[in-house]
Amino acid sequence: MKLYDYLDSGNGYKVRLVLAQLGLPFDWVECDILQGATRTPQFLARNPNGRIPTLELDDGTHLAESNAIIWYLGEGSPLVPDDRLLRAQVLQWMFFEQYSHEPYVATPRFIVRHLPANSPRRTELPDRLERGRAALAVMDHHLGGQRFFVGNRYTIADVALYAYTHVAHEGGHDLTPYTHLRAWLDRVQSQPGHVLLLARPARHLA
Amino acid sequence: MKLYDYLDSGNGYKVRLVLAQLGLPFDWVECDILQGATRTPQFLARNPNGRIPTLELDDGTHLAESNAIIWYLGEGSPLVPDDRLLRAQVLQWMFFEQYSHEPYVATPRFIVRHLPANSPRRTELPDRLERGRAALAVMDHHLGGQRFFVGNRYTIADVALYAYTHVAHEGGHDLTPYTHLRAWLDRVQSQPGHVLLLARPARHLA
Repeated sequence: MKLYDYLDSGNGYKVRLVLAQLGLPFDWVECDILQGATRTPQFLARNPNGRIPTLELDDGTHLAESNAIIWYLGEGSPLVPDDRLLRAQVLQWMFFEQYSHEPYVATPRFIVRHLPANSPRRTELPDRLERGRAALAVMDHHLGGQRFFVGNRYTIADVALYAYTHVAHEGGHDLTPYTHLRAWLDRVQSQPGHVLLLARPARHLA
Repeated sequence: MKLYDYLDSGNGYKVRLVLAQLGLPFDWVECDILQGATRTPQFLARNPNGRIPTLELDDGTHLAESNAIIWYLGEGSPLVPDDRLLRAQVLQWMFFEQYSHEPYVATPRFIVRHLPANSPRRTELPDRLERGRAALAVMDHHLGGQRFFVGNRYTIADVALYAYTHVAHEGGHDLTPYTHLRAWLDRVQSQPGHVLLLARPARHLA
């Protein structure tokens, strides 16, 4: 498999983490999203929505959307439950992540880290951080009663939510008030086969 | 089952449409989201993220996030494929819907239909409509080569994308240029058991 990705992307990191924890080999292709690498005709032929991560399977099929990719990789492994209700709860938290969390936790970090200090997009930060605090509070509340998001065990729902939450402070969030959430971050980090966000995969293609 | 919902919500409509097409009975509980019905302590006990649709199962468990709910309802039926790759492709389009489509197709409609004519949120419309056109173009491009989004048959990916696309004009989108997309809307509408967005379910609880 070949993963089109950008090292600092939390969405890409979800896929790298699952591939590492399942022991699946892959070639890693770095795309400079800041220089338009996902807007070229070649890339748009792989993913017409022009986003990383995009996974190329061995038969040449391309799969996009980080949470769909980790579902594909994880089905049949301990990272995706077999029970119908637990599966739906995994998806519930992954849709929560993309709709109520990512735009307000990941996007502030992107604005702070990757856009110029005088970018007009900085005016978006107060509103995005406020909505992000609401999402973090929902997570902290849920984790008050359980060790992981679904079924009391580590699943791709934890992977999806961990990816941008553990670096939320880099976008201006203060995680200090969220005691349960911080204990969960520690539990996720101590899972077997954990890799770091900025760890460059071994089989790196130019 | 009991569905907490708001009649004009496309997200709620996805669930009503799947319940109708699978012939599953349910009680329908209307929540006035404009009057804070999803922010009460009673509602937050059902869904701490404070959003409709929320489905209450017969054992009292609550499931949130429209696309997770229709996955739960559809698994094992013809609306969700059995093949692993096709399943992931269904999820790919459902995550596309929540991240790249809903905020730019559904939210403009909400602003136009449900907020006052002098709402400051009207300033969001040009940017949201521009991003919405990008999402509609991605859909139209994909549908140029196939009758439905995944596996050449009607699935919950079509339900998820149909819900707000077929009323996109109510938020200011012009669907005229998207020929393939308009033909697909007709195909979805002609599926057995189709119901309309504003059709009030029969078993309506106050």
